[in-house]
Amino acid sequence: MEEQSYVLLVKCPDCSGLIYKITASLYEFNLNIISNDEYVAPVSNTFFNRANFTGAFDREKLIASLKNKLSSEAEISLVENKDKEIVVLVTKEHHCLADLLIRNQYNELGAKINAVIGNHETLRPLVEKFDIPYYYIGTKNLNREGHENKVMEVINTYNFDYLILAKYMRILTEHFVDSYTNKIINIHHSFLPAFIGANPYRQAYKRGVKIIGATAHFVTKYLDEGPIIEQGVHRINHQYSVKQMAKAGHDIERDVLSRALKKVFENRVMINDKKTIVF
Amino acid sequence: MEEQSYVLLVKCPDCSGLIYKITASLYEFNLNIISNDEYVAPVSNTFFNRANFTGAFDREKLIASLKNKLSSEAEISLVENKDKEIVVLVTKEHHCLADLLIRNQYNELGAKINAVIGNHETLRPLVEKFDIPYYYIGTKNLNREGHENKVMEVINTYNFDYLILAKYMRILTEHFVDSYTNKIINIHHSFLPAFIGANPYRQAYKRGVKIIGATAHFVTKYLDEGPIIEQGVHRINHQYSVKQMAKAGHDIERDVLSRALKKVFENRVMINDKKTIVF
Amino acid sequence: MEEQSYVLLVKCPDCSGLIYKITASLYEFNLNIISNDEYVAPVSNTFFNRANFTGAFDREKLIASLKNKLSSEAEISLVENKDKEIVVLVTKEHHCLADLLIRNQYNELGAKINAVIGNHETLRPLVEKFDIPYYYIGTKNLNREGHENKVMEVINTYNFDYLILAKYMRILTEHFVDSYTNKIINIHHSFLPAFIGANPYRQAYKRGVKIIGATAHFVTKYLDEGPIIEQGVHRINHQYSVKQMAKAGHDIERDVLSRALKKVFENRVMINDKKTIVF
Amino acid sequence: MEEQSYVLLVKCPDCSGLIYKITASLYEFNLNIISNDEYVAPVSNTFFNRANFTGAFDREKLIASLKNKLSSEAEISLVENKDKEIVVLVTKEHHCLADLLIRNQYNELGAKINAVIGNHETLRPLVEKFDIPYYYIGTKNLNREGHENKVMEVINTYNFDYLILAKYMRILTEHFVDSYTNKIINIHHSFLPAFIGANPYRQAYKRGVKIIGATAHFVTKYLDEGPIIEQGVHRINHQYSVKQMAKAGHDIERDVLSRALKKVFENRVMINDKKTIVF
Repeated sequence: MEEQSYVLLVKCPDCSGLIYKITASLYEFNLNIISNDEYVAPVSNTFFNRANFTGAFDREKLIASLKNKLSSEAEISLVENKDKEIVVLVTKEHHCLADLLIRNQYNELGAKINAVIGNHETLRPLVEKFDIPYYYIGTKNLNREGHENKVMEVINTYNFDYLILAKYMRILTEHFVDSYTNKIINIHHSFLPAFIGANPYRQAYKRGVKIIGATAHFVTKYLDEGPIIEQGVHRINHQYSVKQMAKAGHDIERDVLSRALKKVFENRVMINDKKTIVF
Repeated sequence: MEEQSYVLLVKCPDCSGLIYKITASLYEFNLNIISNDEYVAPVSNTFFNRANFTGAFDREKLIASLKNKLSSEAEISLVENKDKEIVVLVTKEHHCLADLLIRNQYNELGAKINAVIGNHETLRPLVEKFDIPYYYIGTKNLNREGHENKVMEVINTYNFDYLILAKYMRILTEHFVDSYTNKIINIHHSFLPAFIGANPYRQAYKRGVKIIGATAHFVTKYLDEGPIIEQGVHRINHQYSVKQMAKAGHDIERDVLSRALKKVFENRVMINDKKTIVF
Repeated sequence: MEEQSYVLLVKCPDCSGLIYKITASLYEFNLNIISNDEYVAPVSNTFFNRANFTGAFDREKLIASLKNKLSSEAEISLVENKDKEIVVLVTKEHHCLADLLIRNQYNELGAKINAVIGNHETLRPLVEKFDIPYYYIGTKNLNREGHENKVMEVINTYNFDYLILAKYMRILTEHFVDSYTNKIINIHHSFLPAFIGANPYRQAYKRGVKIIGATAHFVTKYLDEGPIIEQGVHRINHQYSVKQMAKAGHDIERDVLSRALKKVFENRVMINDKKTIVF
Repeated sequence: MEEQSYVLLVKCPDCSGLIYKITASLYEFNLNIISNDEYVAPVSNTFFNRANFTGAFDREKLIASLKNKLSSEAEISLVENKDKEIVVLVTKEHHCLADLLIRNQYNELGAKINAVIGNHETLRPLVEKFDIPYYYIGTKNLNREGHENKVMEVINTYNFDYLILAKYMRILTEHFVDSYTNKIINIHHSFLPAFIGANPYRQAYKRGVKIIGATAHFVTKYLDEGPIIEQGVHRINHQYSVKQMAKAGHDIERDVLSRALKKVFENRVMINDKKTIVF
């Protein structure tokens, strides 16, 4: 029988002996550390630690032990290392969604897709092949807020740890983003910060770059400026049309999103102001 | 005995039969085509062709034959496929320069370095190890134009096909750039168009990117906006300080410049407005 | 209206004027060359040419014109640049198959999947989601030849240009391979020629390599020795277990197979003895 | 003033609380952990730990404290994190050596080159440009042992932490290898275990691979079978001749060796039987 696996995330001002103190608590409770990673951010001098361990323990007592050893400012998060739950938002492009659906179908995603919401009907047939609920919420006769409210109504009927924007081509309001802080993950079809905004492949074509890319990031109220989780690139040449760039780009977008989600779902990603730490 | 190798570059408005016409001329002169590459730029509908061939021929007669077959607008360039001559401009960083010096020493650069000009004395000892003239032209008591005039004086005493800015950290005037149109090649320490301008590694650090890069490009009067020849990237993570990014970046800069120059020196790069075609 | 696109492949002993002669025929028939690529293999001195062109023409007359100009030994193949038809063979792993099914569903594969044949029932539900016929041909009570005969019976009821082994984990007999010369494409889960044969990820783990890979190749009677079409790699470290290597490897296998098929289906791959030319 | 940095390496049978015990010792001595990495090898169940820390301490007392806490089987290594000393062995190829010399010249190698020994005179001029002693030890009239003895005589007049085979094209005897256990690092010009032995680029050409590579590894008595430290690859195509592969390969060899040495010199590499752990 495999023992249950847990992840303990700690964030606090740096000082001497922090790894020692954290591992001391885990040792006292007879827990077995599988891996431990830490990082101290310069300037802010903040300590980040991720401990992956197995064993059986009393949650409240372990947290009390840690709090006792660490400073009162320490943020402690202790989660079971199990599959997450997600809701996916899409528009018309299938490549990222299809990859998520296949991985979900074979329990390789690290998460369960509870629902897919689209602002077009285009992707319903694909989603329904996999017996997952699809919600079409059109934008006709609705302003941005009105549309978002309808989307949020559906979202909020589901349990979820993360909202995945799998090529959801609408700009979100600050209200929407603030409702799900650090829970929204987007895939942007450029190597950020190059080609922010609309039509990045057209921008890349005009500039004549020799490499294109994709970026998975947490969504904040600032368009395409959220903390970057993962990036990937693809070498191109002068022969690529905008359309061919987009086609080649779809494969990178899919791969980058998938790699980013793997890290997030394994509780490997901590947010450090406008950046991420990926253990 | 190896036959002499030549490169014929043709640029003209696209129409039917261009490859046929070019290869017909080469066939008439009993020349042996090693490789032929072509590209038609959309929108402008411009045809670009590079033919690499061997054989012996009367230059004027071959060009006359081509002109006779092609439209009057055709730009024809016929060059022997031999090592180029270059002058290198540097500031204080040695990594790109050292790579050029080593390749030059072993005849692997595809060019002969005729001189190195620096706006500091820092790199003189390295250059002189390889018995290449080093000119120090300081900026003290000189405005931008005054300094550039002194640099141009030295440059103009040398034969050269290209000026290589191997981490030359000064912005060039329009006058300087216009004096050497399509002859100046720069290595920029970012993945353009991301992080244009000063301190790209600091910018990259602040943005929290997961991949850094470098870009080799022709220099035009618009800073960091010239036609891109080659780019390269390097995967980083949250642990990289600005200094470590720069250090990792130095290796990419060196490699990207070297790959770009190889292409240019083999007459593989044609300029198509603000972009390059790299055959 | 987009004009019909064709690919002309020519293989013949090298001599002077071959590109000229081929393009002359295309020019005489008023055909528009989109791109032309050629290669001369050293030692054997064989010339390979791929011309992609558009236009309307009389097939027999064009081939007669080419034959007239080229040597009698020239192998000439003239095909319409359209989607191919394929039959896919699988065992239990879904990752390559799922990618093919998704691309097929959205007409991005460059081919139509006519049927999937498996030696287990495992993948039937996935295939049937996409309304493609699935044939289970078990191996129980059958020797290798007996099983293959049953597989060939099904295959031969379909039109197909290529047989794709999408992680088909059975060794084929010489009889099977000879029945479909140059038509069988396999994805091998290692960076060939490293780790030929069974359990490449286990072999890679034991050797402690820092990079794993995958190889798409044509199948010949010699196990894992057929002409390589495409390869890809993935960086790993000491922390990867055999299982994690396999998981990471699945993504490369999928991507390498997909890239290889794209090239093959666009008529870009020519076989040069034990190697490929990929234009 | 920057504090002195140390690396503590521990290898012992795995059991509960090891990270806790190690960090407890460091905490008791008021030492500041910069980073801590650990790994447990499956099957053998061996624990490996690398702690990088700063501070001032009594070496014997710290080691005593660790020994007191850990099992008697624990192998403890405590080294100052400073530049290493090396001796380099070469034959005729300059590309790896030149890279080491340049990095050495600018204190970027993480090591000081004390001497270079060659079995040809070819590289003397390059080495002497950088004021480093060059020893030519020819093989004329000497059998393998005789030649090696002369090489070892020179080596043993120098202090060194590692012997670097920077394209030293001679096979070493078991006696030589055993004299410098875990101290010899080689760069092999293929992606091991593909193309073991002589002429890997010729082998790669014949096999028609689409990617070539290089491998840096510790040298053991088994040719090209030592623990791999780092690998790198380069994409090629059918147009590459053996010579062009070798040329492209030289850049990878140089980069892979340089990356491997950086890791080794920073005390990041531990040997786990036939494999490495690279922290």
